[in-house]
Amino acid sequence: MNSEASAPAPPDNALDVAVIGRLAAKIDERLGQQISFILELDRLKGIIRRSRLIDSSRFENTAEHSWHLAMMAIVLGERAAPEVDVARALKLVLVHDIVEIDAGDVYIYDDAARLSKQANEEAAADRLFGLLPDDQAAEMRELWDEYEDRATPTGQFAYAIDRLQPLLLNAGSGGLSWTENGIREAQVQKVNGPIVAGAVELWDLAQAIIAEATAAGLLLPEE
Amino acid sequence: MNSEASAPAPPDNALDVAVIGRLAAKIDERLGQQISFILELDRLKGIIRRSRLIDSSRFENTAEHSWHLAMMAIVLGERAAPEVDVARALKLVLVHDIVEIDAGDVYIYDDAARLSKQANEEAAADRLFGLLPDDQAAEMRELWDEYEDRATPTGQFAYAIDRLQPLLLNAGSGGLSWTENGIREAQVQKVNGPIVAGAVELWDLAQAIIAEATAAGLLLPEE
Repeated sequence: MNSEASAPAPPDNALDVAVIGRLAAKIDERLGQQISFILELDRLKGIIRRSRLIDSSRFENTAEHSWHLAMMAIVLGERAAPEVDVARALKLVLVHDIVEIDAGDVYIYDDAARLSKQANEEAAADRLFGLLPDDQAAEMRELWDEYEDRATPTGQFAYAIDRLQPLLLNAGSGGLSWTENGIREAQVQKVNGPIVAGAVELWDLAQAIIAEATAAGLLLPEE
Repeated sequence: MNSEASAPAPPDNALDVAVIGRLAAKIDERLGQQISFILELDRLKGIIRRSRLIDSSRFENTAEHSWHLAMMAIVLGERAAPEVDVARALKLVLVHDIVEIDAGDVYIYDDAARLSKQANEEAAADRLFGLLPDDQAAEMRELWDEYEDRATPTGQFAYAIDRLQPLLLNAGSGGLSWTENGIREAQVQKVNGPIVAGAVELWDLAQAIIAEATAAGLLLPEE
């Protein structure tokens, strides 16, 4: 018997997410759906990305990544094209990775895994957004589609932020995620190219960081 | 020599946050300030709260907590009083805990630590928001003040969300954070009381969860 286990088992009479969902649904059915979705979102904190935190202590998870993007949208929103709806871009970056709860995070340089990514994420969107009342499920789906399609200035700005953030983390933590995976400068150029459509100065910054990383030997030159 | 250390030291010629800040400032000084702030925000991912994730695997950090609150503001915003500016409440919850980068998280039931909380957080706000250009520093400070003061309907709604979220996590993970700390029902009632000013149905839900937790012996009854 180890009475000092770090994660003791809950007692038999514990509350759990199913009980909480039922308590919410007793107040009104819509609240039950909303609270069930909110409880499910907790799992995004357990989805691990390939970027390390800047202090290199561990890999980043998708929930905290999404918060970081939201703060970037607030601070850098003034640099977006005038057609960009910055308040909507904020929602896009908060919502865009929720599908990873079911579909997982796919490394941007893993071309094989990216082939099955779309079907997996479509199924995830159906299940996860489907926990919500129909009107809110449709709203979430529209936000996610606008991010994925990158057909609007707002979607392009959200995507630019989402590309710049791991560049900042990888560079800030000394480029480990690049050197460990043998990433080439040309790959980083290609993946980050869409930043230019979102905000020109952010693309200038990405270019400067990539040049510095290549000069420092953190990114491999052309074969 | 252990060549398989999990967090290898960066090479001598590594990029770091100072270099990135300088590269950004070369594009324009304002971008240098904005990027320095964004890089500093990464540290909020290392601030650990007292709530466990629902799967009990670990304690929550403040960055992912802030993302969860933002999603709650989007989904539950329709339940706020008509005077609430939900888009602004979204910014409030994203920004409200940034001061914890310097001041740390203070447990809501630790009355002694809460005495020095305000002075520590004021100093943290000065330093952290001060990394930004003056106009954006002032904007962040206004958001933080509106959350802290809870004098506006929007501030009250943001605060209600911030109280309800740990209640959902604690209850969803079987009430461990309450039983480990010997928390009483009356304490939870008092701390969560402000929810009623933010959204009445969310207070109804909090009441239902507290009653269930007390009946299950997860919260201690009156002395």
